[in-house]
Amino acid sequence: MTLQVNQERLWRDVMALGDITERDKPYTRQAFTPMFHAGRAWLAEQFEQAGLAVRLDAVGNLIGRLEGDAMARDKTIWMLGSHSDTVLGGGRFDGIAGVLAALEITRTIQEQNVSLCRPLEIVDFLAEEPNLFGGSCVGSRAMAGALPPEMLNGRAVCNGQDITLAEAIRQCGGRPEAIPAMPRRDIHAFFELHIEQGPVLEASHHDIGVVTAIVCIRRMEIHLKGETDHVGTMPMSIRRDAAAAAADVMVWIRRQAEGLSQEGHGHFTATVGVVEIQPNAVNVVPEHARLRLDIRSETPEMMDRFTEGLKQALTDITARLRVSLETFHILSDAPAAQCDKALQAQLSQTARTLGYSAMPMASGAGHDAAFLSRIARMAMVFIPCRQGKSHGESEWSAPDALAKGANVILNTLIIPK
Amino acid sequence: MTLQVNQERLWRDVMALGDITERDKPYTRQAFTPMFHAGRAWLAEQFEQAGLAVRLDAVGNLIGRLEGDAMARDKTIWMLGSHSDTVLGGGRFDGIAGVLAALEITRTIQEQNVSLCRPLEIVDFLAEEPNLFGGSCVGSRAMAGALPPEMLNGRAVCNGQDITLAEAIRQCGGRPEAIPAMPRRDIHAFFELHIEQGPVLEASHHDIGVVTAIVCIRRMEIHLKGETDHVGTMPMSIRRDAAAAAADVMVWIRRQAEGLSQEGHGHFTATVGVVEIQPNAVNVVPEHARLRLDIRSETPEMMDRFTEGLKQALTDITARLRVSLETFHILSDAPAAQCDKALQAQLSQTARTLGYSAMPMASGAGHDAAFLSRIARMAMVFIPCRQGKSHGESEWSAPDALAKGANVILNTLIIPK
Repeated sequence: MTLQVNQERLWRDVMALGDITERDKPYTRQAFTPMFHAGRAWLAEQFEQAGLAVRLDAVGNLIGRLEGDAMARDKTIWMLGSHSDTVLGGGRFDGIAGVLAALEITRTIQEQNVSLCRPLEIVDFLAEEPNLFGGSCVGSRAMAGALPPEMLNGRAVCNGQDITLAEAIRQCGGRPEAIPAMPRRDIHAFFELHIEQGPVLEASHHDIGVVTAIVCIRRMEIHLKGETDHVGTMPMSIRRDAAAAAADVMVWIRRQAEGLSQEGHGHFTATVGVVEIQPNAVNVVPEHARLRLDIRSETPEMMDRFTEGLKQALTDITARLRVSLETFHILSDAPAAQCDKALQAQLSQTARTLGYSAMPMASGAGHDAAFLSRIARMAMVFIPCRQGKSHGESEWSAPDALAKGANVILNTLIIPK
Repeated sequence: MTLQVNQERLWRDVMALGDITERDKPYTRQAFTPMFHAGRAWLAEQFEQAGLAVRLDAVGNLIGRLEGDAMARDKTIWMLGSHSDTVLGGGRFDGIAGVLAALEITRTIQEQNVSLCRPLEIVDFLAEEPNLFGGSCVGSRAMAGALPPEMLNGRAVCNGQDITLAEAIRQCGGRPEAIPAMPRRDIHAFFELHIEQGPVLEASHHDIGVVTAIVCIRRMEIHLKGETDHVGTMPMSIRRDAAAAAADVMVWIRRQAEGLSQEGHGHFTATVGVVEIQPNAVNVVPEHARLRLDIRSETPEMMDRFTEGLKQALTDITARLRVSLETFHILSDAPAAQCDKALQAQLSQTARTLGYSAMPMASGAGHDAAFLSRIARMAMVFIPCRQGKSHGESEWSAPDALAKGANVILNTLIIPK
């Protein structure tokens, strides 16, 4: 026997919460803003109407709890969730799809009178997206005991007040003084449904992506220094053109990343998203070129091979083009998070049982689930989104795609394991 | 018999005029500013003390005239000169070296009681460097009848007043209404001495560069459009990264320019000095890349080959990397100016007679001489400058280098031809 969520109800919820947006820049509900609080109030009301016991934890995660069967001896819990905040001018699915699918799952469980072998909590994690105070994944970091204490002291002007993150958390209903004591030890497994934010499922006609891992993300900075000269009078053969050298570096990065991504050892991307040239004048040979690079790898081995190769390429290119390497350093380094292999197998099995096509895939984006993996078994379900677009008005997923994702998690929970 | 200018007097003049500078940003004497007028007043005084008949022409070029021998039937003139304005934070030689060498030549001719077969005029051309009103070479353009009338209507805030270029010329003592009638038809030959602004003479230990041509200068803009995507979730193999494509284009440009510059068909450079990426964020695949390109070629053939090759390269690269070419156009196109071959031969012969080492070379920079070539036979003499540096405080040439350049022109004038 399999269960089905109410597809129409889930869709109505997604449209309703998405509609709580800054009117002039849809779809915007940034953490700590009045619009975020309005969304939270709506969500809390839905949680209560669904019969859940609603609370806020110390960091301000909104939690709804459904008790398990009274006879169940196992007091560790299932946890399902994602986040309701958005980026500026974001979309209507990133985050809330996972929160509202979790809500719909609790409704279906109750309506179908299914007994749960353990309690189920659904969570709207606080501030998953980058926020005013810097950093991201505030709620899931805190739940995992991974929120650096100094992050709470970050200041920003928030709704006209110059306050700390701790004070903003208090305004959300949290108790920042209790954050150090909050890491959870009672979570049996955590599930997050999310739109893929990439084009792979749509292009390959799959209903479900069973996530294998959330990639490690390394950000690096490269600063090449050449020499400013007159473009007309400095011969090609002896000039020290920092932008020309940067172009060689960028070509190496793209080709190497293309190669690694096709080797069959999992997801790999490397992108130079930031290029800054100085003096950036049409009649002056560029003296400085600064690149910022984002590298994402499913395995630490590929990340290391790429970084070592880049180091060698920089040595070769700077020598050949007579420029110096002023900076080559790591700005940030987030380790990969592995999804639980048994949960992956169960999700794939459930999808097959439901008649859905599923494929394994890595997540190239970070998620709250990455932090939850530090304290619990973790699994993620991806659903297709149109043309892979995310973080914009055009972000879109279909009602049945959402329902299928929710059904896979729901039926994985109720099959006794 | 050969003549020698007074090296010490020439050097004192160069240091004295260089010292008329904005104090907080040496060495600055931008056209139309009070400091420019101060420099002009000093120059006019030196012209008069040297026994020259001093006047301003309609566009505001400062001219000093020395009559030729009374018995000479040829009334066409020799003209020598360059410019006294500088860029913001320029150097002490670019421009004034040519004006003050010309002045020193007139003094030497008079002191040595040499008779001239024709009159000699020395000129400080107005506003050779890019100025507030846009454009450059205002004075030499006007003298050649090549000043677009609409250029005179260009407006700018100049010394606190919102005025046109025509009004600024009037403030310099010019008569803008008379500019249309000013093109000169009486110039037998024009000579300009200038620092090389490149490293070739110094590196090859030559005293004198006999300029063969002033290169043609083409400026182009390239706009590549890709698609903005999430750097982590958009696979390498299908992304449309405008910055990655721009890097391929930049590498093609550098390699092609290196090749052409070594083919033996004269001077060639191509430089991407301006690179602009949007959105220029570390976590977003770049959607737009805009390049500005400066191409300088001694021959139109190389310019055309390069431009055609670039067109083909853009077609290949955009197809291969899935981006579109939104813009590929010429921003400006200045034709090459050929130096008179007979004058080149005479200058080379004079240098040999004086015991100086001379080499032929193209000018990769633009000069007033380019416009004078439209109405007269034209020649240029380059002298070495330290490390090829120009347009900055470090711009430097040596007293004897200046004197040698002046001596070559002086002795070319007095050998009857």
